[in-house]
Amino acid sequence: MTRTAVIAGVGPGLGASLARRFAAEGCDVGLLARTASFVEGLASEIGTEYPGDAVAAPADITDREAVAEAFGTVREALGPVDVLVNHASGATWDGADIDPADFRQSLEVGPVGSLHCTQEALADMRDGDRGVEGGEDEHEGTRGTVIFTGATSAVRGRDGALGFSAAKFSVRGMAESLARELGPEGIHVAHVVIDGGIATPAALEAGGDPEELLDPDAIADSYWHLVEQDRSSWTLELDVRPHVEEF
Amino acid sequence: MTRTAVIAGVGPGLGASLARRFAAEGCDVGLLARTASFVEGLASEIGTEYPGDAVAAPADITDREAVAEAFGTVREALGPVDVLVNHASGATWDGADIDPADFRQSLEVGPVGSLHCTQEALADMRDGDRGVEGGEDEHEGTRGTVIFTGATSAVRGRDGALGFSAAKFSVRGMAESLARELGPEGIHVAHVVIDGGIATPAALEAGGDPEELLDPDAIADSYWHLVEQDRSSWTLELDVRPHVEEF
Amino acid sequence: MTRTAVIAGVGPGLGASLARRFAAEGCDVGLLARTASFVEGLASEIGTEYPGDAVAAPADITDREAVAEAFGTVREALGPVDVLVNHASGATWDGADIDPADFRQSLEVGPVGSLHCTQEALADMRDGDRGVEGGEDEHEGTRGTVIFTGATSAVRGRDGALGFSAAKFSVRGMAESLARELGPEGIHVAHVVIDGGIATPAALEAGGDPEELLDPDAIADSYWHLVEQDRSSWTLELDVRPHVEEF
Amino acid sequence: MTRTAVIAGVGPGLGASLARRFAAEGCDVGLLARTASFVEGLASEIGTEYPGDAVAAPADITDREAVAEAFGTVREALGPVDVLVNHASGATWDGADIDPADFRQSLEVGPVGSLHCTQEALADMRDGDRGVEGGEDEHEGTRGTVIFTGATSAVRGRDGALGFSAAKFSVRGMAESLARELGPEGIHVAHVVIDGGIATPAALEAGGDPEELLDPDAIADSYWHLVEQDRSSWTLELDVRPHVEEF
Repeated sequence: MTRTAVIAGVGPGLGASLARRFAAEGCDVGLLARTASFVEGLASEIGTEYPGDAVAAPADITDREAVAEAFGTVREALGPVDVLVNHASGATWDGADIDPADFRQSLEVGPVGSLHCTQEALADMRDGDRGVEGGEDEHEGTRGTVIFTGATSAVRGRDGALGFSAAKFSVRGMAESLARELGPEGIHVAHVVIDGGIATPAALEAGGDPEELLDPDAIADSYWHLVEQDRSSWTLELDVRPHVEEF
Repeated sequence: MTRTAVIAGVGPGLGASLARRFAAEGCDVGLLARTASFVEGLASEIGTEYPGDAVAAPADITDREAVAEAFGTVREALGPVDVLVNHASGATWDGADIDPADFRQSLEVGPVGSLHCTQEALADMRDGDRGVEGGEDEHEGTRGTVIFTGATSAVRGRDGALGFSAAKFSVRGMAESLARELGPEGIHVAHVVIDGGIATPAALEAGGDPEELLDPDAIADSYWHLVEQDRSSWTLELDVRPHVEEF
Repeated sequence: MTRTAVIAGVGPGLGASLARRFAAEGCDVGLLARTASFVEGLASEIGTEYPGDAVAAPADITDREAVAEAFGTVREALGPVDVLVNHASGATWDGADIDPADFRQSLEVGPVGSLHCTQEALADMRDGDRGVEGGEDEHEGTRGTVIFTGATSAVRGRDGALGFSAAKFSVRGMAESLARELGPEGIHVAHVVIDGGIATPAALEAGGDPEELLDPDAIADSYWHLVEQDRSSWTLELDVRPHVEEF
Repeated sequence: MTRTAVIAGVGPGLGASLARRFAAEGCDVGLLARTASFVEGLASEIGTEYPGDAVAAPADITDREAVAEAFGTVREALGPVDVLVNHASGATWDGADIDPADFRQSLEVGPVGSLHCTQEALADMRDGDRGVEGGEDEHEGTRGTVIFTGATSAVRGRDGALGFSAAKFSVRGMAESLARELGPEGIHVAHVVIDGGIATPAALEAGGDPEELLDPDAIADSYWHLVEQDRSSWTLELDVRPHVEEF
């Protein structure tokens, strides 16, 4: 079975690693991001270098209509969606004095944007004609996978990051609620707590020590493990951090 | 010292119990609610029956300007605010298929409304001319108290209640973030996890067994305890539930 | 109603504050500790200065028979036990290389000692002839209260403190298990997470800054609040920390 | 690199699945269990059917000397230990009235037995001549992996299972403490929360529905994923449960 995966919120760090890794495993990947240029280049790279196909679908995920259009683009090119990674995040780094507009925006990009993408993906996953019956398939019985990218601030409210904490906690609550609702339908919902800085190109250029950062390709291994899990033993939450991280 | 407390989101259940209890302890209380009638009646009852004064300040807490006006009303009548209870909550009881407008509204009433009220209260609490020095005062060193009302769905995402879980988790994240930021300034931030149904007039009329419900006056004891705590031993979170609750 | 409270593990810090505070509220208090001298002096001080009586009952709580004897002493002097605080703790501060004998000892003093004391207290609390019926009593329906003293290391395993983490986690698991079992019987079980250093005489003499330490008398306020809670709104867990604590 | 893995507490359920899976991946496996017969049969099966070798090392893990001997047997047959799974567990299913001897035994098999095995494994993992330098190795920098098998009762104290809750919480505290201590040394410590019944031969014979049970081979996939994780992105904790589990 070729699976179609949507990564919502793709930039040059973990988003790109997830797209490449999923395509290397044979998935076709739909790449959502607010700006077109990066995901278009990445889709073209993936199409030539990996077994899976890729399509760029630029969209502002806080806009329900734009999300519907982007999923339409993905479906037309790659078929119905089997895997969704809610990976977008956006927040100013402000405390109690945060501008309410910035606070609202962090809730729009996190929980609201995740809701938009999840509802589009569920429309495919819940489609009765698909997936569950196929007895030859090692993924028998799994209709789909929805993974939310979390952070330490999803489990421990962070001093001076009020909007970020509000959004990340909210998304974790969504993952738990959806896991309980959708598990019995054969849809796997998971939440990954990323504890530490990621070795993005920008972080490395800024002088970050790779020893102290999470390698995004290594994180992608754990996302892929979640996709591959048998439904008799699904994980709702796992955390990842560098071996030297103090926590 | 007479303290001024604002209860944001006052209805005939826990909100009213908090207002009465705080007024019984001598606090002046400002009562915020979307509709005027109930809080006006309650303010008038409190003014005649309790040591503390009360003022009704109807406001839609999702509207920043309306919140500013309501706090202006409270300040003019009762002086600067020492205690805030972020008690409003509003969510449809829907799962993955929730209307995005309802989902957004639960974030507006929960995290956004709490932000609006908290920022108004902090303007008073952080005012340098107040409170901290007074050596004769048993509350020496405490500039203010902000309490968030939480629910089980703030710590455990609930099957079929996506918007409620998203909002309640979010508010808990805000409480943790603010506790870390504001504690060193002498402002106590706390979060109360209410686990179970409250014996509101409506719940009792609907045939609820008082043995299995939380008595709102009993919950109010714990809120008052939080207000009274010495700053050398502040609580960030406590849970409350009926003795027969399965959890 | 005069309640009888046992504090198991009384030293000159929080244990002594709990004993004095409970006696000031009119409780009779039984003081358990491994060495006799401190609790004997404290019992005599309490007997002359507070409304409640006190009796010293030296015992090694890791010894089931010694605990039975000590509770016998308390019962004979003060009547059946209504409140128990499992407050003893003992652990070397070692990591992975801890001597297994020291590791076992931390489990003996923490979980095993708490079990011994709890079983003795429950024998009184569960006695059918007592307490629950009394309609005039504000504590109607509460047969007893068991409070466990926890620490940050009960919720977050501590680097370099393996035996302490093992014991404190274990005790928290006991509190949760017992709360679920005993709540419906009218017995309140609670766990207090003390996050930070306590301003014991020793800590202050060693130069500790009182601003950065928990005042044991302030902590005792929260223990007493737990004892006083109505059974419609019981707390299983609360945390306490100084306002300046980083956490 | 051929790794040597010790599974401590091997029975016909998850323990056997772990042994087979690790051996299928090329590990040599040492099988510890209190009784010899099952692990001897399993070792012989693995030796003939899988790439990895296996040795049975019967031992009562509550006995420090017996554990030392068993690890000696493993080392002699298979070389120094790279991976340890602390999998043993034993507890009567009793509540507050548990016999203190049974309570102690659950602490002996869980936390104390895990300590014994961990200290033996660390003696090999911390040996300076091994592993970390090898630049050609995909596991460069990882000196070893220690995985603790947990249960829901490790994160939520269970009504009527006091000894089990005390032991499982304790082990989780050990895992967290050790993860913080040993991570910077290049030793990965993880804790797996198994939420639900496992499809052991006994559970299936008793009529358990495989749909509602965890397939031990599927759980073993996640253990193996933990062993394979790059040290830039280590997981401390993950949970696993059947897709239909209510939680």
